[in-house]
Amino acid sequence: MKRSNRLVSLTNFFLENPREHRQLPYFADVYESSKSSLSEDLDIINEVFQREELGFLERTSGASGGVRYIPEFSREKSIQFIQELRRKLEDPSRILPGGYLYMSDILGDPGQTREIGRVFASAFARQPIDVIVTVATKGIALAYAVASFLDVPVVIVRRDPKVTEGSSVSINYVSGSSRKIQTMVLPKRSLKEGANVCIIDDFMKAGGTITGMINLLEEFDANVKAIGVLAEADDDEEDRVVEEYTSLVKITNVDMRRKYIEVHPGNFTDR
Amino acid sequence: MKRSNRLVSLTNFFLENPREHRQLPYFADVYESSKSSLSEDLDIINEVFQREELGFLERTSGASGGVRYIPEFSREKSIQFIQELRRKLEDPSRILPGGYLYMSDILGDPGQTREIGRVFASAFARQPIDVIVTVATKGIALAYAVASFLDVPVVIVRRDPKVTEGSSVSINYVSGSSRKIQTMVLPKRSLKEGANVCIIDDFMKAGGTITGMINLLEEFDANVKAIGVLAEADDDEEDRVVEEYTSLVKITNVDMRRKYIEVHPGNFTDR
Repeated sequence: MKRSNRLVSLTNFFLENPREHRQLPYFADVYESSKSSLSEDLDIINEVFQREELGFLERTSGASGGVRYIPEFSREKSIQFIQELRRKLEDPSRILPGGYLYMSDILGDPGQTREIGRVFASAFARQPIDVIVTVATKGIALAYAVASFLDVPVVIVRRDPKVTEGSSVSINYVSGSSRKIQTMVLPKRSLKEGANVCIIDDFMKAGGTITGMINLLEEFDANVKAIGVLAEADDDEEDRVVEEYTSLVKITNVDMRRKYIEVHPGNFTDR
Repeated sequence: MKRSNRLVSLTNFFLENPREHRQLPYFADVYESSKSSLSEDLDIINEVFQREELGFLERTSGASGGVRYIPEFSREKSIQFIQELRRKLEDPSRILPGGYLYMSDILGDPGQTREIGRVFASAFARQPIDVIVTVATKGIALAYAVASFLDVPVVIVRRDPKVTEGSSVSINYVSGSSRKIQTMVLPKRSLKEGANVCIIDDFMKAGGTITGMINLLEEFDANVKAIGVLAEADDDEEDRVVEEYTSLVKITNVDMRRKYIEVHPGNFTDR
């Protein structure tokens, strides 16, 4: 195959299969090309990926050597994305009764959720993560976006058991803001014991929901390696029950009367 | 920029921005290249995309002419994917009490949901669709996958109203299989009146949930242009309340005692 065609095909392969390791002979077979030509192809692709801040190709040498694509935003690109998000969220028409913020348009846009996922995946790229865990409903799209870049599966904690998933483990927890007792359920079959877990959710106030997930995950002997929330609300620090987490934005002030919202960068930018 | 670098960059652009129309001068600016060179680049990319059955580049000429990438599986590739899915689903260890089938591993795999989304997006590519609608929880990942290929947003119908989304419209409906009365809710703000809608869900038996969604969508004067379900269960035809839909697989027989599952291709293959 000609170099120009190979470059298009290889670029597609890497983008569709992030983190999947392949040995050079695999590509040499597919494209009927020499390893040296392929090696040059990979240099070109790596150069463009790095310049466009899409991540890089990680190459290993030796008998089982090969290549895989690590999708990773640069810190600068992530921070730039967070600034754009802040501007969008500060739109006063988002204010809902109760001081909540309408975010469903952003969470409903596959392009936006994909970029948010890419920021989290970049932040957690060095952690050994086996699975992304989220709770129904609004964090699900973000969880899949992160998972697609880290090449791991998604497990969804539900608030209601469903007959169609077999036996499950459930816990009760106290919701941080409403102080109500709620239930969380995870099918036994959905998570291997001792898995390394990354929790993703759209919003965190006092952190009751995330604490509930952590407690539920303890029943599976899971190791929570990372916690990512899109937006955190400014809360009394003494009320906050979750300490180690990464937030992209922090909503510090929602003034319904004056129709004013203040959104700051989350603790991601302190990393 | 050199052709080889341009090809990598352009391939990434098209894959990340399906259906987004751009005029050639846009690319000429970005890459500081002549339109004729770019035109050759697009020929190469289109050739590879078509050969690998990833879809094609749609080019328009004239003053506002340009190019966009239409991601589309060929019919053969879709059917091949459905056959693999059938094999996976026929694994007897999937049988759950009540004759249900465990599918959360497939629905939890971002790579699998993406491919399922690509099959639906290919099937509905010629329909004028403005938005994908699904109901919480299990269809959500599929809905986002379809939406990402059709470049439209996702709206999630909930079974419980949430305070954080503002005023909403709700309906009661009768679940087809359990004959229980249930509620469905959609925030007013989430859907424009008169939108062209594609409904996506993971599973359909008698079709009560989908009928509920159709009724709820009538309140928004939406036009349901397409309905896609991953798996349908063989049901008495007279019980079925939804007539026009596309299913990828059809579960015809789940024999708990003999540990036997029979999965056939859905009506997608009759198209």
